[in-house]
Amino acid sequence: MLDRSIIEKLEALVGKENVLTSKMDLVAYSYDATADVPRQAPDVVVLPTTSEMVQEIVNLARANKIAIYPRGSGTNLSGGTIPLKKGIVLSMQRMNKILDVDAANLTAVVQPGVVIAALNSAVAPFGLIYPPDPGTVTTASMGGSCAENSGGLRGLKYGVTKNYIMGLEVVLANGEKVRFGGKTVKNVTAYDFSNLFVGSEGTLGIITEITAKLIPAPKYRRSMMGIFKTLQDAGNAVAGIIAAQVIPATLEIMDQMTIRTVEDFANIGLPTDAKALLLIEVDGMSQDVVTAEAEAVMNVVKTNNGDLHTADTDQERDQLWTARRNALPALASLNNTVVLEDATVPRSRITDMLVACENIGKKYNLTLGTFGHAGDGNLHPTILCDKYNKEEISRVHKAVDEIFEAALGFGGTLSGEHGIGIAKMKYLGNELGQSGLNLMRSMKEALDPEYLLNPGKMVPLKEV
Amino acid sequence: MLDRSIIEKLEALVGKENVLTSKMDLVAYSYDATADVPRQAPDVVVLPTTSEMVQEIVNLARANKIAIYPRGSGTNLSGGTIPLKKGIVLSMQRMNKILDVDAANLTAVVQPGVVIAALNSAVAPFGLIYPPDPGTVTTASMGGSCAENSGGLRGLKYGVTKNYIMGLEVVLANGEKVRFGGKTVKNVTAYDFSNLFVGSEGTLGIITEITAKLIPAPKYRRSMMGIFKTLQDAGNAVAGIIAAQVIPATLEIMDQMTIRTVEDFANIGLPTDAKALLLIEVDGMSQDVVTAEAEAVMNVVKTNNGDLHTADTDQERDQLWTARRNALPALASLNNTVVLEDATVPRSRITDMLVACENIGKKYNLTLGTFGHAGDGNLHPTILCDKYNKEEISRVHKAVDEIFEAALGFGGTLSGEHGIGIAKMKYLGNELGQSGLNLMRSMKEALDPEYLLNPGKMVPLKEV
Repeated sequence: MLDRSIIEKLEALVGKENVLTSKMDLVAYSYDATADVPRQAPDVVVLPTTSEMVQEIVNLARANKIAIYPRGSGTNLSGGTIPLKKGIVLSMQRMNKILDVDAANLTAVVQPGVVIAALNSAVAPFGLIYPPDPGTVTTASMGGSCAENSGGLRGLKYGVTKNYIMGLEVVLANGEKVRFGGKTVKNVTAYDFSNLFVGSEGTLGIITEITAKLIPAPKYRRSMMGIFKTLQDAGNAVAGIIAAQVIPATLEIMDQMTIRTVEDFANIGLPTDAKALLLIEVDGMSQDVVTAEAEAVMNVVKTNNGDLHTADTDQERDQLWTARRNALPALASLNNTVVLEDATVPRSRITDMLVACENIGKKYNLTLGTFGHAGDGNLHPTILCDKYNKEEISRVHKAVDEIFEAALGFGGTLSGEHGIGIAKMKYLGNELGQSGLNLMRSMKEALDPEYLLNPGKMVPLKEV
Repeated sequence: MLDRSIIEKLEALVGKENVLTSKMDLVAYSYDATADVPRQAPDVVVLPTTSEMVQEIVNLARANKIAIYPRGSGTNLSGGTIPLKKGIVLSMQRMNKILDVDAANLTAVVQPGVVIAALNSAVAPFGLIYPPDPGTVTTASMGGSCAENSGGLRGLKYGVTKNYIMGLEVVLANGEKVRFGGKTVKNVTAYDFSNLFVGSEGTLGIITEITAKLIPAPKYRRSMMGIFKTLQDAGNAVAGIIAAQVIPATLEIMDQMTIRTVEDFANIGLPTDAKALLLIEVDGMSQDVVTAEAEAVMNVVKTNNGDLHTADTDQERDQLWTARRNALPALASLNNTVVLEDATVPRSRITDMLVACENIGKKYNLTLGTFGHAGDGNLHPTILCDKYNKEEISRVHKAVDEIFEAALGFGGTLSGEHGIGIAKMKYLGNELGQSGLNLMRSMKEALDPEYLLNPGKMVPLKEV
């Protein structure tokens, strides 16, 4: 429990209305969207409105050795925002101004609390988009998605968050504010700090301003659904589309378990006897190119024994994407706990990984569905379970261990877009080796020697 | 001078044929492509052939407090490879194997000594390209261009080196070898070390293996030249093309001084009375899109009082790009010293920067030509001078100071693609502030506490 005098100092710094200490508020900030990780209520939640306030809060925390847990909208899926050591939750939600939209330079400057969808609404009148679109695009914040380097449905063609961050302002653990990058499309001045802080999950600094890259909105698109009788056919079709040198904006997969659950949940007429669906959207600036790409996709689907349905109207398109966006909520409705992973493999190993996930589910007698960004090799094997059933949870843990083992065996990685947080820290050594873990710790201690910022995430706390 | 026993140990480690100590060899490694920086011959040049050898060399150097200067082909333009403190030049040129071309995953794995053009030759049969193309593409190495985060002519549409590096193996100053990233297109496991080492100019670690992203080669292209009567018109045309939401592969500018010099040098019929030329290439997968983009470019050129010439044959296209590729050699032929800068501004400030450079040249009575990647806002103001004329060199230094002051004033950056090295270190504080310089030093000391790797570059040596 923090000394009352600290709370009073925080109130003096940011205003009483921006300091939360009620039991209800503290419980509300004790968790995020991640299942099967510990919960911990903080001592206090502080909502600064300027970067100077952030500096003062950091200085106060450092002087009193209080942990700081930076937080956007709390939608992350690796336990990245849980206040393990109590301390201060630093919510950036009230730093939510769009500071600049510069259509001539294709850039926007925003505060970290701006919701991704709000940025897209602001740039739409200029014919522009900010492409990164995690499933939580209507709630996730720019700061949080930078800290997590979020992916999303359009990642295959348009890349992930880090591909769109041109500059940052960051408050460091020593209280200093640094700015790097900016509106120039090329910049090799200094080390690439923007990319270092993007994806650092709040463990190296607190992002207080973001310069983001925008692109012209694609003018044409075509959405399609491929229906397959085997996982292998679906996986081969994914590889075939890429091999045909078509890069769809979106190339998503759902296995039978996911298809059936979504259909039960949303009643949109999905083919529940299919073993796998591919949801595909090609887009671009030219009707002809989009048409040619759609035809190439059709051919690949047919060659791999799939049936192809095309969305001919906006309504049909929306229905298709509703299916995909409902995958997680539908699965989540089945039981009290959803363990959602994001093991990622090279594209050519997608089929192997799909089959491996299916087999692991069977081996441990678990309700396991897989969906995800097939074109990126970024799958979401998802286990529905009962957190009160200890025996089942122990099977879940064994299955998750094997999923990661399989992904690394296929030349893959622990996380394609959800981050390490606390959920995957124990696997890090398997991918990075001891020298990689040492490098992580060197980096952490160079920027945050006292483990003040989001302690216990990405880099394990030191044994004392 | 190194003790003979060290040389013998190096010979034992890598073989006598991979250790150079003759006076001629040492002189050959005493400089790179940068003008107006000190020269210094090393004590020894070592050319390892495996990453294990690199580890052993680093361990030997650390034990004996000998500086290591990693080097690719030595084409960099910021003094990044000059052995300031003598010591060991570690040339990576004999680690030059292409280890893997994986068309299904659109990746290649290479050793650092592979020349960029050699990689492109190896992937061409698969219909693929590795897009980054610095002017030195036929000599620059993959390792060197990673260390420098090289740009190039295609940067506007296709991005720079860092956009194509998916994974690295690096030997650290502590002798440990770390690997991160790989063939997965998404990866948020650990901090983004790939992007940290790319552009770190050999000051944080030695790159010993690279996993690079490839893309399908564009099928169609159209090259054009816009001829303008004023710099302003040319600058406005650049902004107009981007505003029309056309992203050419290449959008280059040459001012009158450069045009005349190239024409004198190469006799290819350039319009020597023009105040500025734009060289433009649009490309893509669809003839229709390329045609539509070319038409949009034509309209913008005309709207801005330009004449447009189109290259209708491959021969005409080659001639056009010969003009651009000759810009630097042509200017270099005029005098004994070429000071080539790469101050970079947001695209919308291109005209301002062009005019500023012209005025600075006049103010200091210097032969100053400007060419460069206009579409990126990445200009190369280039001063031709006589290094033996001290009075002139002092005017050059003042002009360069003012060029950087102007770029930063326009919201730009010190370097778009040439790096900091030793040439721009003194300006770093102007862009990053003291807190940014502190952050640079923290990073350097976390990974290389003894300043063993490329000491005196990017981060100033400590005053002792």
